[in-house]
Amino acid sequence: MTERVRRMTRLLARLPGVGEKTAHRYLLYLLTADERLARELGVELSSLRDHVKRCARCGNLAEVEAAQDEPICPVCADGKRDASLLCVVGRVHDLLAIERAGTMRGRYFVLGALLSPLEGIGPEKLPIERLVARVRAEPIREVILATPPSVDGEATALLLQRELAPLGVTLSRIASGVPHGGDLEFADPITMGHALAGRQKL
Amino acid sequence: MTERVRRMTRLLARLPGVGEKTAHRYLLYLLTADERLARELGVELSSLRDHVKRCARCGNLAEVEAAQDEPICPVCADGKRDASLLCVVGRVHDLLAIERAGTMRGRYFVLGALLSPLEGIGPEKLPIERLVARVRAEPIREVILATPPSVDGEATALLLQRELAPLGVTLSRIASGVPHGGDLEFADPITMGHALAGRQKL
Repeated sequence: MTERVRRMTRLLARLPGVGEKTAHRYLLYLLTADERLARELGVELSSLRDHVKRCARCGNLAEVEAAQDEPICPVCADGKRDASLLCVVGRVHDLLAIERAGTMRGRYFVLGALLSPLEGIGPEKLPIERLVARVRAEPIREVILATPPSVDGEATALLLQRELAPLGVTLSRIASGVPHGGDLEFADPITMGHALAGRQKL
Repeated sequence: MTERVRRMTRLLARLPGVGEKTAHRYLLYLLTADERLARELGVELSSLRDHVKRCARCGNLAEVEAAQDEPICPVCADGKRDASLLCVVGRVHDLLAIERAGTMRGRYFVLGALLSPLEGIGPEKLPIERLVARVRAEPIREVILATPPSVDGEATALLLQRELAPLGVTLSRIASGVPHGGDLEFADPITMGHALAGRQKL
């Protein structure tokens, strides 16, 4: 194993869920199988973060052409979105998952983190002032709290509820229950509790 | 999802065992979590194949400083290796696994492929002439056939045995049996058969 191979393996092992063995497997593939992939990946990765930035308004991914451009994402740039509806999510991943559903008409606000006492993330580390300022400045009528139905996500939703309540907007929380195609038999007790508590009249 | 994000995801999904979901996960990590990783990986990957090539003698990985250098791997360059012992393997991966064992004193020859009727790899696609020429040219006394104990690996070993027999060198085959720490109860019948057939007198 040469020094370069070791260095490369260490870099690849920084990807999420990739250990030394997987990194080594990727590297051997790049060296022995796919002739062009290493260079193609190299070129794209070198400039990735110059071209894909975080949207200045909501924190979504935004592609910019020149480095000095103000990054604005397609959702914020879309004039057909309902400006009265704001969906607050924890991470970009969650925003993209919601967009895939294709039914969200409003815009987003990405917190970037959830309250997490275990990881030392308290209310002061969340961009609550920016959120409050945005809700005040824009004609927002409803804020959907779309943090995940986990301990940290629920705590974050509670905190946001307290902070946003004085602003007089409607606050809502995404539903939690048995997933589509899921089997009741295999739902964990907490999910089943949510499904029952969140039941809707027919 | 921007065009660049889609292109990047497709490239990452060409890594072995990486599907669209994993590629997307890597990409989001590169964009939102580890600030410097994308660029560091990009720089290394761009020049990877200029600096890590296949050894001109054995096919192992070899690091070269300048593009015009003849690539010679550390094993071939090591004067303390036993020049009378040659170990034939299918892939670089196998060579590295044997080196990790730390007990191989000789040098290597990487075939690059195994006989595989299903994938259309016949004897004409294996570098048998180069192997025969090398065994003839060097003071080699024993050739270890270290292709894997699979259908393709056994077929390749048989073919090599036939081609190398006239050269008057000792031919040997790596042992196949129950792995170290393995439980007899969970050994498959073929492995158990190998373990029995390959038993050694005490």
